[in-house]
Amino acid sequence: MSKTTEGRYAYEGLDRVIHEKARLGILTCLVSHPKGLAFSDLRRLCKLTDGNLSRHLQVLEEAEMVAIEKSFVDNRPHTSCRLTPAGRKRYAGYLNVLEQVVRDAEEAAVLLRTSPA
Amino acid sequence: MSKTTEGRYAYEGLDRVIHEKARLGILTCLVSHPKGLAFSDLRRLCKLTDGNLSRHLQVLEEAEMVAIEKSFVDNRPHTSCRLTPAGRKRYAGYLNVLEQVVRDAEEAAVLLRTSPA
Repeated sequence: MSKTTEGRYAYEGLDRVIHEKARLGILTCLVSHPKGLAFSDLRRLCKLTDGNLSRHLQVLEEAEMVAIEKSFVDNRPHTSCRLTPAGRKRYAGYLNVLEQVVRDAEEAAVLLRTSPA
Repeated sequence: MSKTTEGRYAYEGLDRVIHEKARLGILTCLVSHPKGLAFSDLRRLCKLTDGNLSRHLQVLEEAEMVAIEKSFVDNRPHTSCRLTPAGRKRYAGYLNVLEQVVRDAEEAAVLLRTSPA
């Protein structure tokens, strides 16, 4: 697609469910931990508060991107979170567009360095 | 940074002024057109309405990332937009973090393909 095509920089595939900063962190963390993570580990790795993490997980669960399982481990409640196959697929589609943004920006940076001031 | 470090997936440098989907498109478009663009070209390339583009440009102008110049060309009002040097620098910082997100996600995808099912 040429640099001048209509909508060239619209990046329509930047799915807002995924693009939100905290959710992008949560999903990238979960994609990097395919066996899933305990709520407390996810909270620590994404540096979110309990409330914020819960709120964003709810959005992702409603979008069927994340599965949340509540159980008991050593008689204590345990919540584990993992990406669903549909979530993985949707994230992969988003990632393709994000890679295009990065490529566009990197090409612009190269152009700038090689063109006369 | 290890995959298990606290805040590993917080991506704190994902500046919300830049990360918003439409503004990310506008800025990537402007970084690719270092001489600036007419408002109408920017609107077409980013596929935004007049109102939406104006609103986002105002946010970027207040953040001193974008300079907007109103003039007359052939007796008709003409608005041109370009990235400021500060805007370019701030966008470059954001891009570093975005590249990290993409690297993390790509590494996870490689791991997934090479690990037993």
